[in-house]
Amino acid sequence: MEEVKEAVIKFTKDRDWDQFHSPANLAKSIVIESGELLECFQWDDNFDKQKVCEELADVVNYAILLADKLNVKIEGIVMAKLKENSKKYPIDKSKGNSKKYTELQNEQQRNPLDQTKNLRRT
Amino acid sequence: MEEVKEAVIKFTKDRDWDQFHSPANLAKSIVIESGELLECFQWDDNFDKQKVCEELADVVNYAILLADKLNVKIEGIVMAKLKENSKKYPIDKSKGNSKKYTELQNEQQRNPLDQTKNLRRT
Amino acid sequence: MEEVKEAVIKFTKDRDWDQFHSPANLAKSIVIESGELLECFQWDDNFDKQKVCEELADVVNYAILLADKLNVKIEGIVMAKLKENSKKYPIDKSKGNSKKYTELQNEQQRNPLDQTKNLRRT
Amino acid sequence: MEEVKEAVIKFTKDRDWDQFHSPANLAKSIVIESGELLECFQWDDNFDKQKVCEELADVVNYAILLADKLNVKIEGIVMAKLKENSKKYPIDKSKGNSKKYTELQNEQQRNPLDQTKNLRRT
Repeated sequence: MEEVKEAVIKFTKDRDWDQFHSPANLAKSIVIESGELLECFQWDDNFDKQKVCEELADVVNYAILLADKLNVKIEGIVMAKLKENSKKYPIDKSKGNSKKYTELQNEQQRNPLDQTKNLRRT
Repeated sequence: MEEVKEAVIKFTKDRDWDQFHSPANLAKSIVIESGELLECFQWDDNFDKQKVCEELADVVNYAILLADKLNVKIEGIVMAKLKENSKKYPIDKSKGNSKKYTELQNEQQRNPLDQTKNLRRT
Repeated sequence: MEEVKEAVIKFTKDRDWDQFHSPANLAKSIVIESGELLECFQWDDNFDKQKVCEELADVVNYAILLADKLNVKIEGIVMAKLKENSKKYPIDKSKGNSKKYTELQNEQQRNPLDQTKNLRRT
Repeated sequence: MEEVKEAVIKFTKDRDWDQFHSPANLAKSIVIESGELLECFQWDDNFDKQKVCEELADVVNYAILLADKLNVKIEGIVMAKLKENSKKYPIDKSKGNSKKYTELQNEQQRNPLDQTKNLRRT
């Protein structure tokens, strides 16, 4: 990843584009590219893999630039978020269940003994 | 990155969430998380760095899962897109210029000798 | 608005596109078009008004179709949401303040007497 | 719609929020709310109609504010875009076909006599 990061940053530097890359503009760019990624799946689930890869690459490209701008390592923030999510989504409560952690909690509070309610999709 | 990728995939596997992770659903998830990232910059450019990192991590988390689902390496698709972009945005034409490549071409066609038109922001 | 709504629905019907317009696909389309709208403001706040109007029209077009699909009136759901928001954002607490209602509440709880904290931007 | 528009603008004015509502910020807000709308369909197509209506209302709310800020009528820009789209998507070529107009043109150029190619989904 380090090599890719350096290539992405060099590309920007060579074009003197750093002046446009405020954190806010990079966040906008990530959403814009995500929308183009979603367009590959707009009307059905058949997709052009090559096109999807290109749009996904655009998203990651701007994600790399934003992490760099914030002076954080992408690997580090993802690992930190996973740790956070492990608390929000304990395996026993979220297994096979796509509910949001806020809904998991609500259910737990409403009926702490009824485990079947958690299993919306099994 | 390999280690992060493995951790992300293990997290999903432990919760049996792979069943929800179709490419289309992962693409939706990337847009949804991008929107939350943008929310950090909704009304002004002051931002909570911790919050931005968490939302950015969510975007990258789903990007890793989508790349894995497509059986491609994130590093590979970003490098391939950079190569593509190098052709669309040659340094001499795009330096200090945030125009889209389609606009660069149009300008070039309208007036191939007038280089100053390309320099919108200098 | 009734006339516009009928024109939008007729356009779809004439092309036999209703088959693609599940609520989920319309929601995706709204995000995709919103991303194109945001692209008008990607690097700076200068914008092409004509282009912005076209992208905004695309967003509203799909919003009309989604409301129709859900069998609700756009005017009705906006008025209902305004009423809801009036409770979340009472004038005295939110005046000149762009904070989210969840933050307004937190502040209130942390220090109910300190009104100045609410005025982030004055 | 006129009544709704006035209610939306009054809500903003009462809270002195106009200062935050630059066209760029409203465009961001439309994307952010669209992302929340899409979240209703993140993992499957079952949805909470009440929640969908609320998120759709948020999108339309900001769309009304943006149109007002640009000094255009929502009805007018949607009708203008429909007219534009009628040219891009002539009924005979796009009937029962979800392809983008750029793809329709390509097909037409590759094989103008082969009408069956246009009918991807029938």
